[in-house]
Order: sequence, then C-alpha cells, then structure tokens
Amino acid sequence: MELTKIEPLARGKWLSLHRIHYRRVPGGKERSWEIATRNPEPKCAGGKFADPDVVIIIPFHTGHGRLVLIREFRPILAGDHYGFPAGLVDAGETVEAAVARELREETGLVLTRILRRSPPIYSSAGMTDESSALVYVECEGEPADAEPHDGEMIEVLFVSPDEAGALCADPNLKFDAKAWLVAAHFAATGQV
Amino acid sequence: MELTKIEPLARGKWLSLHRIHYRRVPGGKERSWEIATRNPEPKCAGGKFADPDVVIIIPFHTGHGRLVLIREFRPILAGDHYGFPAGLVDAGETVEAAVARELREETGLVLTRILRRSPPIYSSAGMTDESSALVYVECEGEPADAEPHDGEMIEVLFVSPDEAGALCADPNLKFDAKAWLVAAHFAATGQV
Repeated sequence: MELTKIEPLARGKWLSLHRIHYRRVPGGKERSWEIATRNPEPKCAGGKFADPDVVIIIPFHTGHGRLVLIREFRPILAGDHYGFPAGLVDAGETVEAAVARELREETGLVLTRILRRSPPIYSSAGMTDESSALVYVECEGEPADAEPHDGEMIEVLFVSPDEAGALCADPNLKFDAKAWLVAAHFAATGQV
Repeated sequence: MELTKIEPLARGKWLSLHRIHYRRVPGGKERSWEIATRNPEPKCAGGKFADPDVVIIIPFHTGHGRLVLIREFRPILAGDHYGFPAGLVDAGETVEAAVARELREETGLVLTRILRRSPPIYSSAGMTDESSALVYVECEGEPADAEPHDGEMIEVLFVSPDEAGALCADPNLKFDAKAWLVAAHFAATGQV
C-alpha cells in the first residue's frame, strides 16, 4: 500500500481520528479511509503492528472451577458492560507483566499460570487499528484484594457453564464481543 | 448516568470522535471519556443500543463441510485481514436481510439457514459504541458469483478444523478478534 496523505481530523487525549489517502498498488486509484486509533498516528503510517495495544485476560479460577467475568460501568454504553479484565500495555512492559498487574488491580485475583495467548487480533479493522492479545490464564485468590483505578467500579463474577450460557442469552446485557464468544464456548463445552 | 456535555472533536464521513462529560450518579464527580462512533452522535447521547451497527456472518458451507472465512485488503492494516463476511445494516433493513445480502455480495454464497444469532455485542467498549450481531448460518453455492463493492478484493476460504487451527496459530496473519475466536473454537471442537 502506498500512503499518499495522512490527514489528522482530531487528536484527543486517548483517541485520535485520521483520514488516510492511499493507493492499494502504486499507480492505482487513490482512495480514502477513516481510522480511529489509540495512538497519536495510525499504525499504517509506520507504526508497529507486532505489539498489541491491549491485553485481555481470560481467567479460569482453579479453586472455584469457574470462568471469571467482570461487570463494570462503561460511560460509552451509559451503563454496565460484561467482559474480561483488560488494560493497556504500559510502555516497556511485557504482555505477561501487564496480565499479572491488570488481573490483580481489576479483580484482586492472583495469576498462577499462563495457559496460552493469541497473536495481536483486531477489534474492528474497518474502523480502528486497535489490537488485543487474548491471554488465557489460571488464577487463585479472592476479589476483596482488588485495587481498581480511580473511578473504576468492578464486580467480579465466577460463572459455571450454565451461568455463562444464561448471561450470553440475555438480550438486556451489554457484552464485549470477545467475552461473549468465550462465554458461549464455555457454556457449550465446559472448556475455556 | 448524567451526561453534562457532548463535545464533538471531529465528524468524518464514516466515523466521528466526541468527548463526553458525565457524572456516573447525579451530584457525583464529573469525568470525561472519548468515543469513536459510526454515528453522527454517540449512542449514549440518546441513540438506540438495541440495534447492531454491523452484522457479522459466520457461514458454515454444508456442501463442503467447511467454515467460511474471507481474506480482504484493509487499508487500516496496510494489508490483508482474515475475518467473516460483514457489513453495515442499511436504514430500515432487518438483520436477516442484511445477512443474506452481505453474504451474497461479499462471497457469492447463498444463505440456506440461519442457525442462531447473538444480541448486539460490543467491539471495544473502552473506545467505541460500535456493536455487532453475530449470525451463525448455513450456506451453499460457489464464490464465483460474488459482487463485491467498488474496490473490495475478497478471497473466500473454506477451512477444515485443522486448517482453522493453523491460521489461528500463524503470528504473521492479521485476524479479526471475533473470527479468531470462532476459528479457534472450530479447530478445537469441529463445531461452529
């Protein structure tokens, strides 16, 4: 792809919006596309695609034998949202360190084992270059020890396969897409 | 939630960026958040959360006994992206009509049965109010009959569980998060 112009439309504190002008192949037709990004410049302007912006933790609590979900207030949804503990990877931080830190901060639970992780995968590549690594983990401990950031109100849920299935089927809940898929899989198979 | 101010930062043709100012509870601390949205105003400003912005089609080809994925060029990723056929729901269009239309346009395949669908689920509720309905379907036909929109270059892939697993494990591919999870589930269980 040949990038012919990067047009910043707005730069916020957390997000920015750009319009790129590009040719798919040199000499081809010039087209444009709009991009929301968590970075000052969109990744296609020379940034790195190899590192995920976000880690999303899929925690299985071995003591309780339950999948862990969180319910938290999301201003964008004007209400509560069901998902997994997640957070931005700090500059210089490894994915593994971010996982242990975010799990502890958001839920009070303690990482005991990393099972597997996905490559960086894309939330919605028609509108944003945001990518996440899904990290499947085992954990122990109790939610009482959570230390959420200022303003975060997080409820930790331990769910059985049947409970996961009931949450997924409830049209009144607002679910993260990835959490919905993992919870539906857990409901169908008992496995994360 | 009490919305105290909606500050438009930029309105593009396809996306807009706003900063909202809000109190979680009346009289509470005022905070702000930035929102990328496909709509002129973010949904929390009075829009409807009940209707998905996007339909994402999870097609199982009964004749070939394979899961269908698509590979298409995504300017945001400066390269190819693996995902499912998907598209915006037109004004006044039902989700079911959008599914049949987008599947036909993007892949040439013909919808034969809708198996199940998710409620609207959220791509990344920390940055956007975009929601999708996942619609699991059966289909028939051949990709030769695709009629992609101007500029769309779509390759249709029919994958076995083993092939799905190999794609999911390849760190050089750029995968949609939802497609990665469905493909990984299909690899593990042989089921969509």
